Amino acid sequence: MVKFSAGINKESIIDVEGFVRTVDQKIESCSQHDVELHCEQVWVVSSAAPRLPLLIEDAVRPETDDALATVNQDTRLDNRILDLRTTTNQAIYRIEAGVCKYFRDYLMEKDFIEIHVPKIISAASEGGANVFTVSYFKDKAYLAQSPQLYKQMAITADFDRVFTIGQVFRAEDSNTHRHLTEFVGLDLEMAFKFHYHEVIEVIGDMFVHIFKNLRDNLQEEIETVGRQYKSEPFKFLEPSLVLTYKEGVRLLRDNGVDMGDEDDLSTPAEKLLGRLIKQKYDTDFFILDKFPLAVRPFYTMPDPTDKKWSNSYDMFMRGEEILSGAQRVHCPDLLSERAKEKGVDLEHIKSYIDSFRYGAPPHAGGGIGMERVTMLFLGLDNIRKTSMFPRDPKRLTP
Amino acid sequence: MVKFSAGINKESIIDVEGFVRTVDQKIESCSQHDVELHCEQVWVVSSAAPRLPLLIEDAVRPETDDALATVNQDTRLDNRILDLRTTTNQAIYRIEAGVCKYFRDYLMEKDFIEIHVPKIISAASEGGANVFTVSYFKDKAYLAQSPQLYKQMAITADFDRVFTIGQVFRAEDSNTHRHLTEFVGLDLEMAFKFHYHEVIEVIGDMFVHIFKNLRDNLQEEIETVGRQYKSEPFKFLEPSLVLTYKEGVRLLRDNGVDMGDEDDLSTPAEKLLGRLIKQKYDTDFFILDKFPLAVRPFYTMPDPTDKKWSNSYDMFMRGEEILSGAQRVHCPDLLSERAKEKGVDLEHIKSYIDSFRYGAPPHAGGGIGMERVTMLFLGLDNIRKTSMFPRDPKRLTP
Repeated sequence: MVKFSAGINKESIIDVEGFVRTVDQKIESCSQHDVELHCEQVWVVSSAAPRLPLLIEDAVRPETDDALATVNQDTRLDNRILDLRTTTNQAIYRIEAGVCKYFRDYLMEKDFIEIHVPKIISAASEGGANVFTVSYFKDKAYLAQSPQLYKQMAITADFDRVFTIGQVFRAEDSNTHRHLTEFVGLDLEMAFKFHYHEVIEVIGDMFVHIFKNLRDNLQEEIETVGRQYKSEPFKFLEPSLVLTYKEGVRLLRDNGVDMGDEDDLSTPAEKLLGRLIKQKYDTDFFILDKFPLAVRPFYTMPDPTDKKWSNSYDMFMRGEEILSGAQRVHCPDLLSERAKEKGVDLEHIKSYIDSFRYGAPPHAGGGIGMERVTMLFLGLDNIRKTSMFPRDPKRLTP
Repeated sequence: MVKFSAGINKESIIDVEGFVRTVDQKIESCSQHDVELHCEQVWVVSSAAPRLPLLIEDAVRPETDDALATVNQDTRLDNRILDLRTTTNQAIYRIEAGVCKYFRDYLMEKDFIEIHVPKIISAASEGGANVFTVSYFKDKAYLAQSPQLYKQMAITADFDRVFTIGQVFRAEDSNTHRHLTEFVGLDLEMAFKFHYHEVIEVIGDMFVHIFKNLRDNLQEEIETVGRQYKSEPFKFLEPSLVLTYKEGVRLLRDNGVDMGDEDDLSTPAEKLLGRLIKQKYDTDFFILDKFPLAVRPFYTMPDPTDKKWSNSYDMFMRGEEILSGAQRVHCPDLLSERAKEKGVDLEHIKSYIDSFRYGAPPHAGGGIGMERVTMLFLGLDNIRKTSMFPRDPKRLTP
């Protein structure tokens, strides 16, 4: 039996019959220290090929451990089913499932209703850039870049508070550490009573709920990931820190960044802002409120007291944007006016504007990238580590 | 104020300030019988257009009430945000959210892990029929017709038990009451220890969990839907009824249907079988096990004792199929052999077959159509009633 067992290829699946016995001396080399298994019979259920394209022990090794073999990202992704067997990946996707669970749990508790919205759409809502086209019988259609219009329609259809989890498609030719052509959007939208800050508060609390539950319920998984990919534990405040865009820009200027009041934040400026806020407030999560109107899409509600600003916000983890949201314009006349000011063709967005003609409550919302939240919570360096089967301009398999 | 209020267009959104007062005599004409509202001020938050394309009171009227106006399906769908405001639709989509919630709750309790799998794929896995093509930068890609391969890869990647909820795309030119080109799949897959009946048992119990919780927690919503669309309450057994295909065919033959042992079930035969089983066993839900191998896809595991049959099953609600599933072939050699027997080109499925070369446990699973489950649980006659924004060969909007 020993000889037979020695000949079984690595990664094969076996059944073992035997007895579990306690031991006198602690076993140091296994994760079970107090018992050992006395095999009586061994069967091979499914034999692995004799040569593996990667070894699990190499795939789980910290990249800093440079004396020994590690596995590069493309080899991992090309042989994803082996790569996913590492303890690290087993932990990462349990944490990602947690992100979805705690997102839903919080929102359902707050009377949000889960909805499902179409991914094949008839018109590219945001002007047609970066959109995938689909052949639809004899017609042409598009893949949705966001569920936003449909969330908003659910709100105008009296659902009051909705969320949806689903694929989001971006035909952007970006080959960076944080872009995918297909990712999972955690989207929410809600009508509010007095002020869009009610919505910021709900979303901020929701993130605290997610972070706390990951920290408390998936501690072992977080530690497992940390053994391969070192990072500082994720820090957050309760309630969440909210700064205005103006305050953010001031903090950047005080630290040598040359930018105007209404300039958009560049990616390096975002990163720096994250570091400055971490130093000053000791948090990896914060909300930036009241963006300049000029840098936001036409459907963003202008600040009623000063049209230079808007009722819109981004949220950041470790200095990277993970949510972009706003109060939406719910009045069809203002929406047309804003579209014209932004140079958007009214013909293309007619049905969007018309959907507010039968009574629409003031509402706000936002969309979160699931893979980004998981990546940044764990302090990972590449979004391909948190997408089980990632899609980018160069990768469509497996 | 009375005059002002009388002039507000129907379906506008208003704010009212006033006092709630108890009344001496029960108010019969409202849903609140014991209190009334004394308005002091009324504001219009969002005014609806004066002419509505449909009236909510018409849209909520039972279709049998033929003396009064009702709204046909295309008018409803063309004006979906108004149509969704009916009490019936408010109830339907709360029940549909329940279907997803109870599906997840049951599976997470049983240690299933939620995963997300890509919708843009590089090859049409089932031969290329009925698949939508997407232009992917300079290449061509496809929309996934099923998450099956990815669920199976997660199983071979040691995740043991997984589920995924997401869009499924079918480029079928079917304009029936139960086909959509895009629907929500509730998919699960699990490795088993001894027999694929372990999986049938889990899925059967899961349906019981869903049905019970809908019945007990969404009673008011179910009654609301019933007021517009009459139907018999949905009946089920605990544990679920499991019949073999052979037994199903015998029941049909005993009732005058002329069919061979290995013939596939036609849609009318399915319907009839549903009625016969309802009469005999008093259940609207049952499982049909051990389909003829000839009518199932190449990746279905043959019955090890008789290759005429297979380890596969369908599940039915009110005589319509809502789940199709099977034990999958996990051995690459057998998979190649079966593909050849079925005339499937091995070149096209090479990567599928290769994914079982590094050790794959015996596993089985299935996929459920969310909209069908909701439709059939409520006894509705059209799947467009349970898809918030349905897609079919003729409808891409809203």
